[in-house]
Amino acid sequence: MVESWATSPSGQALGIDLHVEPTGPGLRKGLTDALRTAVRGGRLAPGSRLPSSRTLAADLGIARNTVADAYADLVAEGWLTARQGSGTRVAERPVETHRVGTPTPARGRRPRSGLLHDLHPGTPDLSSFPRAEWLKATRRALAAAPNEALGYGDPRGRIELRTALAGYLARARGVHADPDRIMICSGFVHGLMLLGDVLRARGVQDVAVETYGLDVHWNILTRSGLHTHPLPLDQLGTRTDELATGEWATGELATGETDVGAALLTPAHQFPTGVPLHPDRRTAAVDWARRTGGLILEDDYDGEFRYDRQPVGALQGLDPDRVVYFGTASKSLAPGLRLGWLVLPQSVAAEVTEAKGISDWSCGVLDQLTLAEFIGSGAYDRHVRGARLRYRRRRDQLVTALAERAPDVRVTGIAAGLHAVLQLPPGTEQSVVRAAAWQRLGVSGLSSFRHDTAPAEPAQDALVVGYGTPPDHAWSGALEALCRVLP
Amino acid sequence: MVESWATSPSGQALGIDLHVEPTGPGLRKGLTDALRTAVRGGRLAPGSRLPSSRTLAADLGIARNTVADAYADLVAEGWLTARQGSGTRVAERPVETHRVGTPTPARGRRPRSGLLHDLHPGTPDLSSFPRAEWLKATRRALAAAPNEALGYGDPRGRIELRTALAGYLARARGVHADPDRIMICSGFVHGLMLLGDVLRARGVQDVAVETYGLDVHWNILTRSGLHTHPLPLDQLGTRTDELATGEWATGELATGETDVGAALLTPAHQFPTGVPLHPDRRTAAVDWARRTGGLILEDDYDGEFRYDRQPVGALQGLDPDRVVYFGTASKSLAPGLRLGWLVLPQSVAAEVTEAKGISDWSCGVLDQLTLAEFIGSGAYDRHVRGARLRYRRRRDQLVTALAERAPDVRVTGIAAGLHAVLQLPPGTEQSVVRAAAWQRLGVSGLSSFRHDTAPAEPAQDALVVGYGTPPDHAWSGALEALCRVLP
Repeated sequence: MVESWATSPSGQALGIDLHVEPTGPGLRKGLTDALRTAVRGGRLAPGSRLPSSRTLAADLGIARNTVADAYADLVAEGWLTARQGSGTRVAERPVETHRVGTPTPARGRRPRSGLLHDLHPGTPDLSSFPRAEWLKATRRALAAAPNEALGYGDPRGRIELRTALAGYLARARGVHADPDRIMICSGFVHGLMLLGDVLRARGVQDVAVETYGLDVHWNILTRSGLHTHPLPLDQLGTRTDELATGEWATGELATGETDVGAALLTPAHQFPTGVPLHPDRRTAAVDWARRTGGLILEDDYDGEFRYDRQPVGALQGLDPDRVVYFGTASKSLAPGLRLGWLVLPQSVAAEVTEAKGISDWSCGVLDQLTLAEFIGSGAYDRHVRGARLRYRRRRDQLVTALAERAPDVRVTGIAAGLHAVLQLPPGTEQSVVRAAAWQRLGVSGLSSFRHDTAPAEPAQDALVVGYGTPPDHAWSGALEALCRVLP
Repeated sequence: MVESWATSPSGQALGIDLHVEPTGPGLRKGLTDALRTAVRGGRLAPGSRLPSSRTLAADLGIARNTVADAYADLVAEGWLTARQGSGTRVAERPVETHRVGTPTPARGRRPRSGLLHDLHPGTPDLSSFPRAEWLKATRRALAAAPNEALGYGDPRGRIELRTALAGYLARARGVHADPDRIMICSGFVHGLMLLGDVLRARGVQDVAVETYGLDVHWNILTRSGLHTHPLPLDQLGTRTDELATGEWATGELATGETDVGAALLTPAHQFPTGVPLHPDRRTAAVDWARRTGGLILEDDYDGEFRYDRQPVGALQGLDPDRVVYFGTASKSLAPGLRLGWLVLPQSVAAEVTEAKGISDWSCGVLDQLTLAEFIGSGAYDRHVRGARLRYRRRRDQLVTALAERAPDVRVTGIAAGLHAVLQLPPGTEQSVVRAAAWQRLGVSGLSSFRHDTAPAEPAQDALVVGYGTPPDHAWSGALEALCRVLP
């Protein structure tokens, strides 16, 4: 139309853009038709407010009366309503919108809808997310951020957050962390995907994993073209002492060698069995990596949460050159933040940075800057301490309730994290899981975490109970429901 | 140690976690050694504050005097300082930290450091990011978000944002958008990566692109295993009328057929040449897609910014079943948000959702919820209008200045977006770019956007000038610097 559209001051006052292309002989008819089509097709939703006739006229560079007339026509036809004080709006009426079906519902990690109580492991108590503190940190972050922070950034993430994490991880988890060697990513899976691609590009074909774990993680490695082989497990944790022999591997290793190129481990608190890696096994893992040039991928998903003693430091502290450390805000704060971090050995830092740079996405900088403020102000430590107190209390209540009400069920694993393992009488796991589902209690059988190619024997019947998930007010009800379905 | 570590109330008061593992015969000596090692190794940074002796004693479950003695030893040795009122801190001194070199500096989109003036295209004026309004929207979003929003979510992104975008895109860009068919992603590149993988998995091998564009985009498609073939360009825009023939394709198409499986286009404002796609070419593209079952990938990167008239609506409106619409907040707000969106045809919605679900990351929910509030409250429209006014003024000033100072230089492309194309006398592009670099003025030659396999003739000498990037106070200086290097 005319130049005034883009910048009309009256348009700015209302602040709405309306896209119509008046066509046909008369401007009034064209505008009327365009608006009618927009309403009929659902582009203008019922109840939504239209720009004032003056604004729209200025935007389109046409006379105000033309717009007023078009509005009046459409009010007359019943498409719009005009009321003193509330302006011109699209009439509330069933509109034949252009709907051609919906895509398949998204697959969540687990079906959680319809549950009365959710005790699947993996999600912290979201009701305790520190909203007020987070907002304060956001305010400070927004005030302090340099303009360039809002641009396309360093693929490793913001230096403010990398610096804050370097301090925190050294202090709280014994990690050797240099900000230059930290990379921010969108949670653990994103980091694992980057490492998987880098390992495959290096020619690695086989990766050792743990017998029990999350298939979504193994699938990420498979997607990069890697084969996963489950290491056996005993009461001292994963048998990293067997890494060197290769005999444990199910089937042939793709290389025909005895060595895998990397091992994915959860040393502080094996997921889901809850066993920590014995000091000898920690040493064995690092020795193997040094001897073979392999890498250890340390998934420190819940390292902050230990209740019986100070947590064991990260394995990465033993050899920062052979261990990639993976941390996350998903358990300590909330998965919805999609914030995780890697501490990279020198030997892979450049390759992983390049892989991330190609894909060119990072997490939103505002969340990164906010988390940096949150850590720097001490709010993160305070939040973790508070959460530790609540989760520990829940775990104690769980243990006490089981001792009274289900004496055949034994809780194994260390007092840590957000989940417990309940050993069941042989042969009862499936029936307990089914009974729970019947009561709309979400709980996972241990067997659902078993690697496909792990030897079927010895079978273990157990439940993995995530006591972190329910909000405080629902916890006792969830515990009661759990006790009812146990043998 | 003891149970009190995790939950000590005194520990909570200070709110710091300190990871030390006292070993050796005496607890005091063990603690002293551990702290000394932490300071020496750089794990405890100079100036950082230690927990009070009472807090640390409670945390470790040891006597307060033991901690106080250890602190005193280290103060005596010069590792720590103790001062009334500021507690015990690590001494400020050069510490021999464990540094083993830094990785290769991250590659940004373009080298921007060291520039006096940055007129590379692609980044909006970051100094105008609406920080105060964004904070308000964050406050509302945090107050309104249900707890489950903070958990692992729908791979398509939060419904609040998808709903807000559906309304906005219909209203402002003429997009047929159903919230179920919208997917939030981390900017355009992330969305293109998902589409590239889905197309390749479907068996597509060849994708038509535009002769001029961004090689990072083409590389994303290549990474998915696709071949890119540049379509010719004339004054009516990209020659989509030739899509059907296949004769334009450089070299053989991988399939040996005449058809490519998809076409990546920038219909509203070709990047970087600035030509809009002629109505006949829009129709030709859609006709081709319908006839062959091909998909059009519509990159609507700056559709909000048109200055001479109301923007032409999105191509997607012509056929929502054959066009994938890509939008982004990178130009309208800031790239650092890493927020983009796809509007997916029914035929690929499930596949793309599944591809995103496997990778399991989404953007942080807080930014998504904040943007939903920002759009819903009208702040987004207001911001876009304000930005349009500022960018238009800059473009006008650029055109005026060139007419006066560099009459041999002609500005081509429509009055839109954040960049202009300056046609140079034949054979002068390289020398102008070099002269600019010498003056530390960042500006791009058009040839740097030319597809590798596009015919070398006709050569065009031109500059692509991003007038959106400088902050307001630096704009006139940047324009002056530009005029000085032009012939």
